[in-house]
Amino acid sequence: MAKALSEMEVAKFLKSSLKEWTFEDNSIKRDVKFKTFVEAFSFITTIAMEAEKMDHHPNWSNSYNKVKIALTTDSEKSVTQLDFDLATIIDSTYEKYMQGVK
Amino acid sequence: MAKALSEMEVAKFLKSSLKEWTFEDNSIKRDVKFKTFVEAFSFITTIAMEAEKMDHHPNWSNSYNKVKIALTTDSEKSVTQLDFDLATIIDSTYEKYMQGVK
Amino acid sequence: MAKALSEMEVAKFLKSSLKEWTFEDNSIKRDVKFKTFVEAFSFITTIAMEAEKMDHHPNWSNSYNKVKIALTTDSEKSVTQLDFDLATIIDSTYEKYMQGVK
Amino acid sequence: MAKALSEMEVAKFLKSSLKEWTFEDNSIKRDVKFKTFVEAFSFITTIAMEAEKMDHHPNWSNSYNKVKIALTTDSEKSVTQLDFDLATIIDSTYEKYMQGVK
Repeated sequence: MAKALSEMEVAKFLKSSLKEWTFEDNSIKRDVKFKTFVEAFSFITTIAMEAEKMDHHPNWSNSYNKVKIALTTDSEKSVTQLDFDLATIIDSTYEKYMQGVK
Repeated sequence: MAKALSEMEVAKFLKSSLKEWTFEDNSIKRDVKFKTFVEAFSFITTIAMEAEKMDHHPNWSNSYNKVKIALTTDSEKSVTQLDFDLATIIDSTYEKYMQGVK
Repeated sequence: MAKALSEMEVAKFLKSSLKEWTFEDNSIKRDVKFKTFVEAFSFITTIAMEAEKMDHHPNWSNSYNKVKIALTTDSEKSVTQLDFDLATIIDSTYEKYMQGVK
Repeated sequence: MAKALSEMEVAKFLKSSLKEWTFEDNSIKRDVKFKTFVEAFSFITTIAMEAEKMDHHPNWSNSYNKVKIALTTDSEKSVTQLDFDLATIIDSTYEKYMQGVK
């Protein structure tokens, strides 16, 4: 069971590793943007598969080429290591898309 | 080009055909729920393909087994026939899932 | 580690539980059919997510509304319990589609 | 309606533009490979959406990180411009993945 992290622990991890994420409403959040809906949806599919495999799912929304992501651990009503793990996968997946579309 | 519909036209269509939808913030809205994330995501994939084909895309969010959908036509800053068409596809797709999981 | 099953064990399981499957070339096989490509692809997405979660993946092909599936366990060069498990998920998923599209 | 192309026309187009494709059994064919199943499936989803939009679908198979693609136009029992168009989308999509995973 992932355990709740203090605000200070979250802030530290965001500063060192998840630089594009913010902490708000008990969630860590990142917005990403693509060229097209198809590209955004291909990213969404990748993250959906990774999330299902971890049994830890994002709260997210999509409008055309934009995806807003919020991660939290419901059972802890807080951010946990699970959220950091999923955020790290999201970052590396998005990085690949950005390199691919240069 | 789809043309903006009056609030009265939208209200009438919702009452006659899109009974599960509400009208709010220049959008028609419906929330749907599934048993699992995998089922929700399979529904999302179906709608994504239909939306891309129509070149008319939803504003939507997902949390585990729940999907919230809002449809509007950006170019008109209003609801148009395109939104009714996509909502009709969404309803018939959701209906199939609900029959399938009885 | 899933262990290789004898031809007799496979035949028995197919007869009792996986009635739509055949055993051929060290794989168990089933072909399924949908109304449209979108429906076939929604099914494919569901199975892809389940397969990734199990870390056990099908050999499959798709032509429009048709999907041909072959399951085997590479490490054993044979059918194992993993294939039965994935086949059972495939059957119950397909069943839902068929109920949904009646 | 896309019209059937002669073998010579196909050969010429393959040589000039679709260099990774071969012509065989009335189809043009290409095999592609990814690092993981998730990456392969993300590619598959992208192509599925593009194919549905064109209303022209591939014959394809997938085994873990490999995807084999064959394109033909059933109504013409031959390769047509539609196949070249879809092959071009496939190439540029695959190219993005390869740049992204360098």
